[in-house]
Amino acid sequence: MEPTPWKTALTDARPNAVRIRGYAVEQLMGRLDFGQAVYLLLRGELPDERAARLINAILVSCIDHGPAVPSTLAARTVASTGGPLSAAVAAGILAVNAIHGGAIEGAARALLAAEAADAFVRAVPEGSGGVVPGFGHRIHTHDPRAARLFELAAEAALAQREMAAAREIEAALERRHGRRIPLNIDGAIAAVLLGLGFEPEVMNGFFMLSRAAGLIAHAREETVREHKMRSMNRPPPVYDGPAARSVTGTRSQNPEA
Amino acid sequence: MEPTPWKTALTDARPNAVRIRGYAVEQLMGRLDFGQAVYLLLRGELPDERAARLINAILVSCIDHGPAVPSTLAARTVASTGGPLSAAVAAGILAVNAIHGGAIEGAARALLAAEAADAFVRAVPEGSGGVVPGFGHRIHTHDPRAARLFELAAEAALAQREMAAAREIEAALERRHGRRIPLNIDGAIAAVLLGLGFEPEVMNGFFMLSRAAGLIAHAREETVREHKMRSMNRPPPVYDGPAARSVTGTRSQNPEA
Amino acid sequence: MEPTPWKTALTDARPNAVRIRGYAVEQLMGRLDFGQAVYLLLRGELPDERAARLINAILVSCIDHGPAVPSTLAARTVASTGGPLSAAVAAGILAVNAIHGGAIEGAARALLAAEAADAFVRAVPEGSGGVVPGFGHRIHTHDPRAARLFELAAEAALAQREMAAAREIEAALERRHGRRIPLNIDGAIAAVLLGLGFEPEVMNGFFMLSRAAGLIAHAREETVREHKMRSMNRPPPVYDGPAARSVTGTRSQNPEA
Amino acid sequence: MEPTPWKTALTDARPNAVRIRGYAVEQLMGRLDFGQAVYLLLRGELPDERAARLINAILVSCIDHGPAVPSTLAARTVASTGGPLSAAVAAGILAVNAIHGGAIEGAARALLAAEAADAFVRAVPEGSGGVVPGFGHRIHTHDPRAARLFELAAEAALAQREMAAAREIEAALERRHGRRIPLNIDGAIAAVLLGLGFEPEVMNGFFMLSRAAGLIAHAREETVREHKMRSMNRPPPVYDGPAARSVTGTRSQNPEA
Repeated sequence: MEPTPWKTALTDARPNAVRIRGYAVEQLMGRLDFGQAVYLLLRGELPDERAARLINAILVSCIDHGPAVPSTLAARTVASTGGPLSAAVAAGILAVNAIHGGAIEGAARALLAAEAADAFVRAVPEGSGGVVPGFGHRIHTHDPRAARLFELAAEAALAQREMAAAREIEAALERRHGRRIPLNIDGAIAAVLLGLGFEPEVMNGFFMLSRAAGLIAHAREETVREHKMRSMNRPPPVYDGPAARSVTGTRSQNPEA
Repeated sequence: MEPTPWKTALTDARPNAVRIRGYAVEQLMGRLDFGQAVYLLLRGELPDERAARLINAILVSCIDHGPAVPSTLAARTVASTGGPLSAAVAAGILAVNAIHGGAIEGAARALLAAEAADAFVRAVPEGSGGVVPGFGHRIHTHDPRAARLFELAAEAALAQREMAAAREIEAALERRHGRRIPLNIDGAIAAVLLGLGFEPEVMNGFFMLSRAAGLIAHAREETVREHKMRSMNRPPPVYDGPAARSVTGTRSQNPEA
Repeated sequence: MEPTPWKTALTDARPNAVRIRGYAVEQLMGRLDFGQAVYLLLRGELPDERAARLINAILVSCIDHGPAVPSTLAARTVASTGGPLSAAVAAGILAVNAIHGGAIEGAARALLAAEAADAFVRAVPEGSGGVVPGFGHRIHTHDPRAARLFELAAEAALAQREMAAAREIEAALERRHGRRIPLNIDGAIAAVLLGLGFEPEVMNGFFMLSRAAGLIAHAREETVREHKMRSMNRPPPVYDGPAARSVTGTRSQNPEA
Repeated sequence: MEPTPWKTALTDARPNAVRIRGYAVEQLMGRLDFGQAVYLLLRGELPDERAARLINAILVSCIDHGPAVPSTLAARTVASTGGPLSAAVAAGILAVNAIHGGAIEGAARALLAAEAADAFVRAVPEGSGGVVPGFGHRIHTHDPRAARLFELAAEAALAQREMAAAREIEAALERRHGRRIPLNIDGAIAAVLLGLGFEPEVMNGFFMLSRAAGLIAHAREETVREHKMRSMNRPPPVYDGPAARSVTGTRSQNPEA
């Protein structure tokens, strides 16, 4: 009831001036890539080169996974009804939950609790499938994104303790279940973001930021390539884009390169 | 009814392999920043350095504008009820419409139609305020983000024709209305994205991508700094974050640097 | 910037008292059905019995249409990721657009403009399929809901002029296209709501209110009957609920009964 | 991967026929009010008169609470940006969470667990404010909606055990906290819906269904009465609608009447 104004420490927006964490936004434009700006906004300080490279790798890792995953299917379904782009993107974001893209926060908590990985893994109730957020995947037995992210973190000599904790949980899962339940990209992101000092509560946001790009691309493809309100209940979609190819001659973000 | 599968040209996701526009995602991680990956996904090819710098500048430009704008207020309102992060972000995205962040597509169409800027501006109905999407701002008479984006595009020698069209509309608006109705960041983004070859229909997506970062930061700040379900109907918030400061020693993204 | 408070004419909520359009909500509870309360809130006055029966019939008409329609598919997709009920319902609502459930407003505008139905129908661009919102259906050649709603409106001697306009557009569409493009439930609702005095701008809301019940039921069915994050891209679902049956002995809402 | 179709027991939609739980929808139209149809869809059978009256009373109870509550503020914020009605309603629904409208499910679980109310109340962690979902209210010390709903349930001789459990929790809360933390409308709805045999998981849906009507009314009022993208950060709104009045001569839904 009292009329004291509330406060924000993120951005100071005044007539003809917008300062992000103290920095004039126009000074940041052209100097920071988006990953650096995300780090600044969420953490309050600029990242060094190594952290910036990892943040961008995380944002690249989840940018798309084809049309059949829940977030993308929800976005394409809304697009198929002629809805505006913002409605398609919002519907896709709403499908980011514990089972899809939203395991990063839970994985971070698991890593923080995993002093004794076997005890932790044993404590997971049987009824929940016995699994831990960030481990196991519907189609990937060896998630290439998770492996690459850990490779990059190792190159940067960051998040070493958290990566070790992830490996311990993986081993404990195999001991309990008698089969490999491998680290997935959610779990790998959790380990790296913990190593960089992020709070678990904002971590699922990295998946949302990354996948929002895919949702935009799919909403547009739906509008251009399909007729309105077509049935989505049909066989899985087939990829007909560019054949497999490799990046050559692109500037690596590796600070050592 | 026929069971032919539908098609996608964006991403080929198979067991243990995810290819974005033909590139293995793990090869992109560590080599591309997020702006480059967004360009690749939406356009189908990798950007050159100049285009990549502009895309990142666009994504940085709208990353936050403080808590009082509609998208942020909607996200904080949802966060104040204890909703999950995805609900707060989705609610914020739903506030991106023609009046707020969603003028980029309309501005692009205006620029494409602006062969004869005076005729175009005269054709805008009086009832709509006589304005053109991408021009005029509630609080900025000189939007520092728009000026900086055009400076960067000029440095890159890109979007020159589209920037000229924007200046012509600005001049025509001043002639019709007798006062300056300046280009805003939406209009500047539209000109640069047109110059880079993007379709108008995906352009509002850049605002959504950028601002999603702000929505995440504000949802978290709301949860940490305010009590649940507090009244939002009170005086505008006050900034209490870091004082004004400057970037020094940060690697410039300027390819000429 | 001026601190004058804004105003609302809908509800006066104070400590221990909530008045809807002037009526204490606890006095309305037990006296009004939900259709009557919706009418009161949107129109400002209580409906008579005939109007109340039509409003309830409209709300019943769109309550569900099986799992394959876009709104329901979006809601089930979100539910399949473990999202909260509010996220599933919101995603479903976001699929209510011009092509699905959101043609009521457009149909009302068509009916208002249909003084000369042939001229109106001729003016529809060829590229848009030549159709008018509220006419034609993907699977129904004779929409039983539209027929029944007009039967009820005829019994009530309401919306007669608007129903005639709908029939004229139907006839003009047949003359132009050489085949029947029948009134659908969106068009029928538009005619009846116009007859009852509602503004076109709120009319799509009746579909949202009605279908929200279906979204809740499907989100729950998804959770109970399907495994998490299952593929939606498969053959259309099969109905296995109660066999066809009839209402007997239920109090008719017909005021004449 | 197997191509077996999935199943639904809710609605059988075929060309020219839509059956809700076995009943042809056109037979339900004009015979059921919306509350009865919601009961049929969610429970599978038609309600008797007493249950139908309670369902409608629940749907009426939460239809609106003025513009300052989170769901309504989110919807009005989206409407203020020119978004479509579906976006405003979806944003409002997203604000239905544990703190606002979404305590019904939790309250139902509390009532089910409240064999020994004192032990239950003592088990609530101090850190959570010591409160139980469905008890306490930001502005109502005596929620007139909760009192009326219990009065109606008592008249119908339904949900007696669940109402008693609610009173026991209320008493146990007073014993623990030394002050009255009264049953609110969420808690009262939970007790009545439990008594009617609904599952806790669908109960928050009743608030969403009910409040969706308010969201539609407020989105429209925002568009009509306020200028676009106005600041919401200002003093609380003032009611200027019809003065207090009473229903007279309206058909009571009381089956005994």
